Amino acid sequence: MKKIMIKIQYVGKNYVGWQNQKNGISVQQVLEENISKLLGEKISLIASGRTDAGVNAICQVAHFETKSNFLVKNIAKAVNSFLPFDIRVLFAEEVDNNFHARFSAKKKTYVYKFYQNDILLPLKNNFVCQVKENINLAKMKKFAKLFVGNHNFRAFCSAKTQTNNFIRKIYYIHIHNVFDEIHIEICGNGFLYNMVRMIVGALIEVGKGKLSKNEIKYMLKTGDKIKFIKTMPPYALYLKNVEY
Amino acid sequence: MKKIMIKIQYVGKNYVGWQNQKNGISVQQVLEENISKLLGEKISLIASGRTDAGVNAICQVAHFETKSNFLVKNIAKAVNSFLPFDIRVLFAEEVDNNFHARFSAKKKTYVYKFYQNDILLPLKNNFVCQVKENINLAKMKKFAKLFVGNHNFRAFCSAKTQTNNFIRKIYYIHIHNVFDEIHIEICGNGFLYNMVRMIVGALIEVGKGKLSKNEIKYMLKTGDKIKFIKTMPPYALYLKNVEY
Repeated sequence: MKKIMIKIQYVGKNYVGWQNQKNGISVQQVLEENISKLLGEKISLIASGRTDAGVNAICQVAHFETKSNFLVKNIAKAVNSFLPFDIRVLFAEEVDNNFHARFSAKKKTYVYKFYQNDILLPLKNNFVCQVKENINLAKMKKFAKLFVGNHNFRAFCSAKTQTNNFIRKIYYIHIHNVFDEIHIEICGNGFLYNMVRMIVGALIEVGKGKLSKNEIKYMLKTGDKIKFIKTMPPYALYLKNVEY
Repeated sequence: MKKIMIKIQYVGKNYVGWQNQKNGISVQQVLEENISKLLGEKISLIASGRTDAGVNAICQVAHFETKSNFLVKNIAKAVNSFLPFDIRVLFAEEVDNNFHARFSAKKKTYVYKFYQNDILLPLKNNFVCQVKENINLAKMKKFAKLFVGNHNFRAFCSAKTQTNNFIRKIYYIHIHNVFDEIHIEICGNGFLYNMVRMIVGALIEVGKGKLSKNEIKYMLKTGDKIKFIKTMPPYALYLKNVEY
């Protein structure tokens, strides 16, 4: 039995998310079917974490176990020849048996991309989120620091989140201009359901002057949703990388 | 009679190109139909130049004449509410009667985007061109200077080009890295059919070590196609702006 780690890039648009679900095709399902076909053996993938429906991955990480003797260095190329264009295995290698794509993950980094314009720009469509209102970027950068560290993120995740532990650690939030886009990069030890999209939603409210420092502090302390926080659309969110 | 100048952004993928044609829907046709509908009067657009099937525009420029009294400052927003998501009017203003989107154009700038990778990356798909081979970027930057100035570009345009004058002036060719992409920006006084995509094709051959300085010099002098030059695919080409 060998344990194989793979790195994967995908466009989330056509999928119900990473995780297998009954309501449509998942990225996991497409990969499991095609890797199983290649190796002649049913394999199961465990990823660093789920990505929601429509969310993209620049680099997701997953592992699987196999008895196959198929040359590991040829797996990526061989599977890619079966896969649809919106999913690609970037890399595959054999790993120690104690490696676990989910439990060994130390840090995850997401990037959220948006642009500020009255007009919905065709070339950004489906990949970068439009913000129509004027926003104060300096204020967003300042307030982003409030989220850094260990906090109770119950007010910044979906009400559907199934967990008893809402404490997560954010290592940094960087906000920077990339030509006419603004990229918010968030690195943490793990993220709750919709958490990145809600932190970005909160920061954009900050930029519009609709959310104060004290309100954020209060929500991070108590976990109470005292203000409506928009969950930003998924297509502009990218899982950038996972560190082990 | 008023003359209106508009700036337009579009994704070329779903169109036969800018120009009206019998074999499918053009960007021009979609815009003419929707502006005509808005103004209640049949208008005709004249653009700075054609873009080929599949080529994108960050900013194309066109003009039309109208007797309508519809407020010019409201045209963009109103037309955009009719247009498909892949075409948007960015701007509209009344211009002097002697303005002509095509004949008054002094400089046009195109950008060609590619990345170097064995794997066809999902997130670049349809918008950035894959180059599998290793390429020598320093050599490409050096040889790009050969194209700058007035030259006979007959060897660097489609055999179908209908013109007697193959002389065009290139103001600059800049090649730079943008994260994991390479962008070739070409500014000239005008471009022949497929010319940008063939200059990029030639430069990539240079990067692979398959096209020499003397061969380029010879082709620019004589106009003879002594070597096959690949026409790069259209989806990674962007008309960036037009100067008047």
